[in-house]
Amino acid sequence: MTAVTARAHTNIALIKYWGKLDQKLIIPQNSSLSLTLDQFYTDTTVQFSPKLQQDQIQLDEQQLTGPAAERISHFLNLIRQQAHCQQFAYVDSTNHVPTAAGLASSASGFAALAAAASRAAGLRLERPALSRLARRGSGSATRSIYGGFVEWQQGHDDQTSLAIPFSEEVDFDIQMIAIVLNNQQKRVSSRSGMAEVVATSPYYPAWVKAANADLIGMKQAILKKDINLIGQIAESNAMKMHATTLSANPPFTYFEPKSLTAMQVIQNLRQDGYSCYYTMDAGPNIKVICSAKETPAILERLGHFFDQQQLLVAKPGPGVQYL
Amino acid sequence: MTAVTARAHTNIALIKYWGKLDQKLIIPQNSSLSLTLDQFYTDTTVQFSPKLQQDQIQLDEQQLTGPAAERISHFLNLIRQQAHCQQFAYVDSTNHVPTAAGLASSASGFAALAAAASRAAGLRLERPALSRLARRGSGSATRSIYGGFVEWQQGHDDQTSLAIPFSEEVDFDIQMIAIVLNNQQKRVSSRSGMAEVVATSPYYPAWVKAANADLIGMKQAILKKDINLIGQIAESNAMKMHATTLSANPPFTYFEPKSLTAMQVIQNLRQDGYSCYYTMDAGPNIKVICSAKETPAILERLGHFFDQQQLLVAKPGPGVQYL
Repeated sequence: MTAVTARAHTNIALIKYWGKLDQKLIIPQNSSLSLTLDQFYTDTTVQFSPKLQQDQIQLDEQQLTGPAAERISHFLNLIRQQAHCQQFAYVDSTNHVPTAAGLASSASGFAALAAAASRAAGLRLERPALSRLARRGSGSATRSIYGGFVEWQQGHDDQTSLAIPFSEEVDFDIQMIAIVLNNQQKRVSSRSGMAEVVATSPYYPAWVKAANADLIGMKQAILKKDINLIGQIAESNAMKMHATTLSANPPFTYFEPKSLTAMQVIQNLRQDGYSCYYTMDAGPNIKVICSAKETPAILERLGHFFDQQQLLVAKPGPGVQYL
Repeated sequence: MTAVTARAHTNIALIKYWGKLDQKLIIPQNSSLSLTLDQFYTDTTVQFSPKLQQDQIQLDEQQLTGPAAERISHFLNLIRQQAHCQQFAYVDSTNHVPTAAGLASSASGFAALAAAASRAAGLRLERPALSRLARRGSGSATRSIYGGFVEWQQGHDDQTSLAIPFSEEVDFDIQMIAIVLNNQQKRVSSRSGMAEVVATSPYYPAWVKAANADLIGMKQAILKKDINLIGQIAESNAMKMHATTLSANPPFTYFEPKSLTAMQVIQNLRQDGYSCYYTMDAGPNIKVICSAKETPAILERLGHFFDQQQLLVAKPGPGVQYL
């Protein structure tokens, strides 16, 4: 069978996915909305072969073993099942990120894998089916099938929970600056963090309601191309997500001292008249939402507090593609 | 009329007071519970005099003017009303705290003022009436009338909202270490912070319920003299309070980078087997709940990250007294 290569870009949620209704199918508790970024992506090549006794998985030129390899083989099983394919696969995946930034998340990885592996197994899936498939690997991968602004509609089962493009062509000058504070393995994975929160936080039901309300506001803000409104809603939504970790039992946080420093710098820039806002996922890195034209000035200020190689600029990026 | 001097100690809430039902009467949204501390206190002398044309208020040897002075005169008006007293007062107040620690809060200040001024005006108030009176100056002052563990029962009006001693004599070796990270004026006062949260946080109703449940657990933990359980509930309650600021609109936080550093040090000590937990009020300082016998080891570890003068040890303290 032929080798297929696909590229998928990572995405940063402006309205966060935080909590599952169904652990196995990865049906979320709330709909989410993200911006796919051009700068960070994964290229993955897959070839099924009758010669293999097991999947051979290579990530960034390292042979993958243990639970990480099992998670991928488990995902490939879904494809083998759909394609009535009995063969094991070679998987060769490379994360393209300027530095080891902790940004080549499972989003771009599972989106690229879904696209490459399904076609390598002989399936011809349209993007809605690819989005549903990617979802089974990692929730946020659901959105990386599309470019630009993407909504992951919560749905209620495997058929109905999938992403749709909200606006693939982004014709205003929004972009992001990732501030890389720590590229170590997270202390609490997003998967276990959200599970803890769903199980123990008394604030969680209010998160679900608030996130769905924020989504409505965010769509209006995007239609208005209003970077300030997009940023305000994104920042408020992200902080409500992080509030749920402090209210878990026992409490925990993804904040690190430098995360707070970065937030303060952004707040100060705002007081000085810049349109910049922050969002943050299940890790210490901060992502700044701003306009292209103000990016140089914001980078200059951030440069007083962080090294240049910690500051990565990304524009809106495209959906999954075959190479 | 004669001069009267009273001393009141500050208190640290283990179950936080966070949000008012009635702004003017300072009726809280939830009951709270605190430990009065021996180390930090305020001595206040009050004398009413027919010679004065206005109140003369001195704090730490500085003449007080502006809104801070007005707040105290406004409080003295309540006493003048009750005592049918037409005279203005000399007020001389001194905060006794090893350094300017941001710990001589309004709690000890208004408790001492309530005791000294009411007696100077000729009133003879029992402690329940003093507690109600102190409440009108500052919510947390309600609790500083009593020593040891003190519950502020929420109530529903001026008569019913007051503190009662839960266990004035503390016969187990619990104590606190205050880590002083910033003695500057707070960016957001607790008064305006809690008002913002009540008005805008979608998590606030769940806070009120959770705090009342935490209070029940905390009383059981104190009766058991179980420092680990006291600490766990206090830490969890404090983080739920801080979660409400992140969920306010716009979000804000009292966390500073060094607050997170201190929390991490305490978590690491816990992993090493020490019974220590943190709580935090509407400011960046961290208060560690621990046992007297483990305090030297905990101070030693904290000394790797903070200066000795930032680390203040306090034992349970007494209620308000006349000097």
